[in-house]
Amino acid sequence: MKTVEVKKGILERNQENADLLRSIFYQNRIFVMNLVSSPGSGKTSLLEKVLPIVKENYNILVIEGDLQTENDAERVRKTGVEAIQINTGGACHLEAVNILKVLKGYDLTKIDCIIIENVGNLVCPSSFDLGEDLKVLLISTTEGEDKPIKYPSMVRVSSVLVVNKLDLIPYVNFDVEKAITYAIGVNNKLEIFKTSCFTGEGIEEFAVWLKSKIEDKKL
Amino acid sequence: MKTVEVKKGILERNQENADLLRSIFYQNRIFVMNLVSSPGSGKTSLLEKVLPIVKENYNILVIEGDLQTENDAERVRKTGVEAIQINTGGACHLEAVNILKVLKGYDLTKIDCIIIENVGNLVCPSSFDLGEDLKVLLISTTEGEDKPIKYPSMVRVSSVLVVNKLDLIPYVNFDVEKAITYAIGVNNKLEIFKTSCFTGEGIEEFAVWLKSKIEDKKL
Repeated sequence: MKTVEVKKGILERNQENADLLRSIFYQNRIFVMNLVSSPGSGKTSLLEKVLPIVKENYNILVIEGDLQTENDAERVRKTGVEAIQINTGGACHLEAVNILKVLKGYDLTKIDCIIIENVGNLVCPSSFDLGEDLKVLLISTTEGEDKPIKYPSMVRVSSVLVVNKLDLIPYVNFDVEKAITYAIGVNNKLEIFKTSCFTGEGIEEFAVWLKSKIEDKKL
Repeated sequence: MKTVEVKKGILERNQENADLLRSIFYQNRIFVMNLVSSPGSGKTSLLEKVLPIVKENYNILVIEGDLQTENDAERVRKTGVEAIQINTGGACHLEAVNILKVLKGYDLTKIDCIIIENVGNLVCPSSFDLGEDLKVLLISTTEGEDKPIKYPSMVRVSSVLVVNKLDLIPYVNFDVEKAITYAIGVNNKLEIFKTSCFTGEGIEEFAVWLKSKIEDKKL
């Protein structure tokens, strides 16, 4: 029982920090998205395509979470958007305290949107609130269509599902509608996007949606 | 400090169970492989291809770890190999105690090889010894070649790297040799295989290697 109690302690402490973050984001009218997926589903690639469209109208800050390397932050910076890299060392997810630390002393008054790209992991990040407005879950067509029912906890806490790598459908055994049906079966409130960062399919729709969310937060 | 101490407690308890498993496997001369990867890298697909070759000569038992569903065990059973499904509920990895429980009362004297397919997760399973002889790490060509340096803990504890989904190389931006160089940079003892479960490339080589490992364990 000791383990369970301590895990609860970690989650409670995280929730306090997440509540604080949420209040900071609210005061500054910043829309915050927590982007989650398996490793290699295309989170950074999606940002590389969407950021150039959205940055025309809004100031965006990207926070990258990885065990090691600055690779993803560097990829984001090439789009002209500011990016902060967090290296978690061994940790399999970001915690609210990581976000609090990197934002300390940061001038948030000019930021419209923060995108947090979590560590690639379809399990653990589902338990850790980062004060975000919503979680966006990516799955890619190369992962197999049963992932939403094999990893239901992440589907349950997400508001948006992006099915990415549509361009690879001719070469893989993946039924998009079946994957979406599985996901909706776990969480029937999911908003769905279908994208390819290679052909550009669905990118504009996702960018338009993101802009509308940023705008809504200002009201 | 409380968190760190308890995590150490969990790992120490796991190690005791893993040591017990290792001694059971040794007594029964069973070669045990712990198969790890991101979700959707093709662990089950690799087994579907390799098991029909290896089962001709050896008795194999597969243990499948997933948060939910019996899907993977069912896929394995279609090859004629016995499979036990463990559903971890919310847990992001298998622990030695899970393996001990399902093997309790099981007649191991006729088993030559146990393959444990871990939960799809490139982080947490690296910390939990399951009493295996070695870990086999799969990465797929759709995941991006920098995964070995972004998730180095798993590379460090693995003995074998399988680069899977070779057939998709014409359609993705993935440099196989670069991925292997990154991996070797983290762990220069890695044995490397390159496979495609679609074209069958590299499957025979992997099956031959597995047979030799099973044979070695009998000596």
